[in-house]
Amino acid sequence: MPAAESPLVRRFSVKRIAHAQPERIVDTVAAEEPLEIRVSYWFKDVQMSDSLALAMRTPGNDRELAAGFLVSEGIVRERHDLVDLRTLGSEGSNEIVAELAKGIDFEGWRLARNTVVNSSCGICGKRSREAIARQLAAQTVHEDAGSFRFDAALIETLPALLRARQQGFSQTGGLHAAALVNAAGEIEAAFEDIGRHNALDKLIGWAFLNGRTPLSNHLLFLSSRSSFELIQKTVMAGAPAIATVGGPSSLAIETAREFGVTLIGFVRDQRFNVYSGEWRLNS
Amino acid sequence: MPAAESPLVRRFSVKRIAHAQPERIVDTVAAEEPLEIRVSYWFKDVQMSDSLALAMRTPGNDRELAAGFLVSEGIVRERHDLVDLRTLGSEGSNEIVAELAKGIDFEGWRLARNTVVNSSCGICGKRSREAIARQLAAQTVHEDAGSFRFDAALIETLPALLRARQQGFSQTGGLHAAALVNAAGEIEAAFEDIGRHNALDKLIGWAFLNGRTPLSNHLLFLSSRSSFELIQKTVMAGAPAIATVGGPSSLAIETAREFGVTLIGFVRDQRFNVYSGEWRLNS
Repeated sequence: MPAAESPLVRRFSVKRIAHAQPERIVDTVAAEEPLEIRVSYWFKDVQMSDSLALAMRTPGNDRELAAGFLVSEGIVRERHDLVDLRTLGSEGSNEIVAELAKGIDFEGWRLARNTVVNSSCGICGKRSREAIARQLAAQTVHEDAGSFRFDAALIETLPALLRARQQGFSQTGGLHAAALVNAAGEIEAAFEDIGRHNALDKLIGWAFLNGRTPLSNHLLFLSSRSSFELIQKTVMAGAPAIATVGGPSSLAIETAREFGVTLIGFVRDQRFNVYSGEWRLNS
Repeated sequence: MPAAESPLVRRFSVKRIAHAQPERIVDTVAAEEPLEIRVSYWFKDVQMSDSLALAMRTPGNDRELAAGFLVSEGIVRERHDLVDLRTLGSEGSNEIVAELAKGIDFEGWRLARNTVVNSSCGICGKRSREAIARQLAAQTVHEDAGSFRFDAALIETLPALLRARQQGFSQTGGLHAAALVNAAGEIEAAFEDIGRHNALDKLIGWAFLNGRTPLSNHLLFLSSRSSFELIQKTVMAGAPAIATVGGPSSLAIETAREFGVTLIGFVRDQRFNVYSGEWRLNS
């Protein structure tokens, strides 16, 4: 498939200036478009519909993105909580509707959230860090996640394995990737997006749609830095460990320590730092 | 000032594994904490107060961040639109209240926005890209911005100038920076944050609080990639040009072209690409 046909990238004619010499080139950049995620849900006996989020995302795997967002936000937990995912309009549409099962109390979730969330920060409308902690604490940690272990040696092999999967990044330098890694160090799936949070949501959504959540026996690996939001998504997906090429924020470390998540950063050049949960590493 | 005293960074004891050899080190990482931005505003003759956004930000320059967010969202335009900015509670508080002038129709803004926004994506609650375009089109482009020109040669000097200002980045590798550059190629101000959108909001807020907006005769320079959101903020601050160390997204390019913003990317190693508005560059 020619590169220009990938939904991940777009081409533009631009002026390049190198050492003061201008030339006209065609540059390939990461695609960014808004995706409106709508929900169809039941309130008493009436089926309602409303806008949930507007994600600035790289097109492709929109179903996975929407499903992962619903999991990350705690709106759905079991596969049967999500009845259907429909793209509105023609191919290339920027609107997707998630139909929730009758038992899902979306109005209650929204009241608790106090406002409509969006996909970018994931914590819009919460009044405090305490509220964030309460949401995460309500998440049931699968008992398998407590017993998951992996070899320290597999960590340093991950950057090369992920890079081989990053088709969009190699063309643009502007796309992040999120991968699902098993205890044998194999990448089982990987997704790219201009936003690291979207790349992780696509991965979590893929796992959810295939009945594989909670991800109790897997490690997440991302090409980006790690922030609070990525740890939040890791916890909500039931994954016991996350490693990133870049470094973590202070709140990422504090949240990982609080929820027993193994957090690894700066995975590069045969080195890495373990910020939390080092007891999961067999050395 | 010792590094550990900067609000930009935090230190953690962590395990480093290099070439399979573990050691215990103290690692310095970028600080991330939520900041609740509240507004106090007038509705008819009653003064109201409500939560506007929860920003996951690096502490420091919270006043500038809050002011810049208000400018980026189009809630305030003139210096006198913002009566006061108060941090709630003691030093190190994560809550700030912006008091709007009596003439500011915050309820109207919120209705138009359809929901409370948050600082991370900046477009929460808008139903479509068309709605985004309408908001930006409503922004008055200052006539000076049309006549602003700068020398192409100054662009390649910017990475070294900015790096010299990035105290937090040099310690952590995890902070972005946004700088205000004049036509002589001098950096007049620079701010750091874990989020590129926050770094830019701090810069715009600083300019606004000092009566310097619209930024009609300046170029913005950021250490990050550029997305739609950064172009949105550039337009709302009245700046005619933005350059970044990383690359742009497709929507950043399309939006810059639509609004006549000069967009430059991949500024590194004496090279850069001009994606939009190349007529502002004297070569």
